[in-house]
Amino acid sequence: MAKEKKVEQITDMETDFAQWYTDICRKAELVEYASVKGFTILRPYGFAIWENMQQIMDGEFKKTGHVNVAMPVLIPESLLKKEGELVNGFAPEVAWVTMGGSEPLEERLAFRPTSETMFCDHWSRVLHSYRELPMLYNQWCSVIRWEKTTRPFLRSREFWWQEGHTIHETAEEAQAETEQQLNCYADFFENVLAIPVVRGRKTDKEKFAGAEATYTVECLMKDHKALQGATSHYFGDKFSRAYDVTFTGRDNKLQYPFQTSWGSTTRMIGAVIMAHGDNNGLVLPPKIAPIQVIVVPIAAHKPGVSEKAQELLDQIKALGIRAQADFSDNSMGWKCAQYEMKGVPVRLELGPRDIENNVCVAVRRDNGEKVQVSLEELEIAIPALLDAVQQGLYDAAKKNLEEHIYAAKSIEEAKQLQAEHGGFIKTMWCGDEACELKMKEEGGMSSRCIPFRQEQLSEVCACCGKPAKHMIYWGVAY
Amino acid sequence: MAKEKKVEQITDMETDFAQWYTDICRKAELVEYASVKGFTILRPYGFAIWENMQQIMDGEFKKTGHVNVAMPVLIPESLLKKEGELVNGFAPEVAWVTMGGSEPLEERLAFRPTSETMFCDHWSRVLHSYRELPMLYNQWCSVIRWEKTTRPFLRSREFWWQEGHTIHETAEEAQAETEQQLNCYADFFENVLAIPVVRGRKTDKEKFAGAEATYTVECLMKDHKALQGATSHYFGDKFSRAYDVTFTGRDNKLQYPFQTSWGSTTRMIGAVIMAHGDNNGLVLPPKIAPIQVIVVPIAAHKPGVSEKAQELLDQIKALGIRAQADFSDNSMGWKCAQYEMKGVPVRLELGPRDIENNVCVAVRRDNGEKVQVSLEELEIAIPALLDAVQQGLYDAAKKNLEEHIYAAKSIEEAKQLQAEHGGFIKTMWCGDEACELKMKEEGGMSSRCIPFRQEQLSEVCACCGKPAKHMIYWGVAY
Repeated sequence: MAKEKKVEQITDMETDFAQWYTDICRKAELVEYASVKGFTILRPYGFAIWENMQQIMDGEFKKTGHVNVAMPVLIPESLLKKEGELVNGFAPEVAWVTMGGSEPLEERLAFRPTSETMFCDHWSRVLHSYRELPMLYNQWCSVIRWEKTTRPFLRSREFWWQEGHTIHETAEEAQAETEQQLNCYADFFENVLAIPVVRGRKTDKEKFAGAEATYTVECLMKDHKALQGATSHYFGDKFSRAYDVTFTGRDNKLQYPFQTSWGSTTRMIGAVIMAHGDNNGLVLPPKIAPIQVIVVPIAAHKPGVSEKAQELLDQIKALGIRAQADFSDNSMGWKCAQYEMKGVPVRLELGPRDIENNVCVAVRRDNGEKVQVSLEELEIAIPALLDAVQQGLYDAAKKNLEEHIYAAKSIEEAKQLQAEHGGFIKTMWCGDEACELKMKEEGGMSSRCIPFRQEQLSEVCACCGKPAKHMIYWGVAY
Repeated sequence: MAKEKKVEQITDMETDFAQWYTDICRKAELVEYASVKGFTILRPYGFAIWENMQQIMDGEFKKTGHVNVAMPVLIPESLLKKEGELVNGFAPEVAWVTMGGSEPLEERLAFRPTSETMFCDHWSRVLHSYRELPMLYNQWCSVIRWEKTTRPFLRSREFWWQEGHTIHETAEEAQAETEQQLNCYADFFENVLAIPVVRGRKTDKEKFAGAEATYTVECLMKDHKALQGATSHYFGDKFSRAYDVTFTGRDNKLQYPFQTSWGSTTRMIGAVIMAHGDNNGLVLPPKIAPIQVIVVPIAAHKPGVSEKAQELLDQIKALGIRAQADFSDNSMGWKCAQYEMKGVPVRLELGPRDIENNVCVAVRRDNGEKVQVSLEELEIAIPALLDAVQQGLYDAAKKNLEEHIYAAKSIEEAKQLQAEHGGFIKTMWCGDEACELKMKEEGGMSSRCIPFRQEQLSEVCACCGKPAKHMIYWGVAY
């Protein structure tokens, strides 16, 4: 029974990107399907990645004064329906609780698809004065949206997320919050997930149900498809009015506060897989890797090797690095394949000859580079290596993004560029939804965002030839 | 409009303990009722307490090798029904999802009341070999139990908890896990929540649905009623068999693993309120207090006072202490009452005369003691004060517990002692459920636990006079 577990092969990404993705999700033990259709289980390794993401994000939210709360998971139908656009946007995807114990409920209850309604209902009861504003709330929870087709992390009926909800005295403050949180997401994607993003505004067609404006960070995967990273919404006082949230203002009159919400989900794990992974498996940015360094002893049965490997491990852990050692009797080949599959950023190999020379061999997961590291210099060398992997991943993803943005002057050209190269196709746009629909139908692409950094590609809309208002990015999206 | 907010009075605990409790929950801004009957909202201050509890517990769980996961929130009815005792125990309290979007579901789905079934279902698909054991899983989430009557934290239809679920190669290992986790809870109650506990085993009548044995930590509130703190369950291989969880053992044969689960909930916040609170409001143990020290400047408009208070705050925060200062123009009286209501362990007052003398005045929330602290000695004095409050709360709660344990020789005597003093009534017991029911009907008390530390009070059962098997604790419980 001491037979070693096989590291199973995964499909090449060039052969079948979708299958490659699913293979990694399963074989790196991130998720498993549940017995309820469309639902997934976050396994320990997958959840540990999410925990690392949570910890960093939560810290950033708190730095800017946000506090966490817990709202009920069930929303009465009547409450959900008070704001028409929101309910129209989400109604087709709601899971309904209709029985409590053995009795049918008088009113059915929605499993939250998003919690704007609950926050507004709460605020309508606790807010009194401008002195209590802003209220900067956030919650970490799961939501349900009854999707027809699902894929691990990218689209599942239940997913885990954070939803920030804030109210402010003035429109300007709420708008500033919306921007601040979008930038918080952008920084997280770029500095933590090592994924460069395009920041911009969604078109009216693509914005959140009920929002006045939705801002987004958009990123590009290795197959050159686009993925919406995280979004931030400005509601004006629309929900405040619908839910009767009021406060006594500085002028002693009743006023409606201005509102925002912003969310990011476990789909970010999917983004990491598709932005950095390769044909050997997952590749994790060190900042979110559950294991940042794996120590693998060579010929561990030889005298002194295990002891020295343990010493090495202790030294690295003392630096505050998440490290493990594999002392199992599995083969070296198996171990290398296993930790590559799991995307561990740095592997340290240590054998009898290395010990003689007072060195170990470090192997980078991102580019396979091997370097000898003196055991005297671990304190500087290992953190530097982790930084190098983090930067290396970002640089490669940045290159992928920059090399796959193409300018087009017509739907035809846009379609052809997309078919040939994928990526973001940028065009000028008149701002009419009709042209957006036309690009979807004829060009097969949805609008991704109107980037904050505008360029003047031409004077006219690529779809209709009328005067252009914006430069817009199009893409085929997850 | 600069009118200051009132600190509202709360009911005295001697007048109406239940109302006192509810008043604290609301006026200390821990919870608010939601628009769904029986559901509550954890407000920022209440949730911050829960976050502090979570962080400490989660760290302890991880020290002993436990990892976090996320299981789906919905359980198919057929899956829930595979283990008869469990489903019988929970069926009357289950909330059912019967609609997904606009379509009725083929099979209704239970909102998890507890997740043994999901963990077993998952393990039945991923477990192969004894080499993968033990699997030591935990998840932080909310559950729903459709209770008829509810009270904030103590009994609500949705509550937040952690549920640990583990499987092991042998019965001995699973039993050791059950014990280890019970001790982990006991240590948490005593060292973190400053609440002494009685550790013991639940009777068969009171044990968890489907468990072979349930262990519990029981504590005593200020009204001398009992409260079950947290529980740990041993399942043997009963669920493994029901859900077909198997592994290839060392003997190369298929075996069933042995299982445990253990849980603790937001009801611990209720325990803290009722174990430590007083007629001025909440009293929080420093280890879980969102604000450990509040700095209140006196005559802050006078030159140098605000600056010095800010300096004091910065010094304290630099010690890693959670501190805030209140520079608002509310009165000193309002501020004192406000932070007493919120249970802040230490208040530091600093006025012009204090600054002259290079001191501040520290006021302990637990006993109202005031001491002068030299501004030169903050680094030692403030942490020492926090330790003293933590210990003071524990000592008082310990005294309350020890002074309210009474021995009785008959149901009549037990009933009378309970009526006069409350607390735990200890008697000998034959082990028959009939006697347990009799104590409930005639004595008005439920069995709390069979303490691990047994005493030989007499030879015979207090209820029936037959030979006694155990000493047991009875009480009126939340």
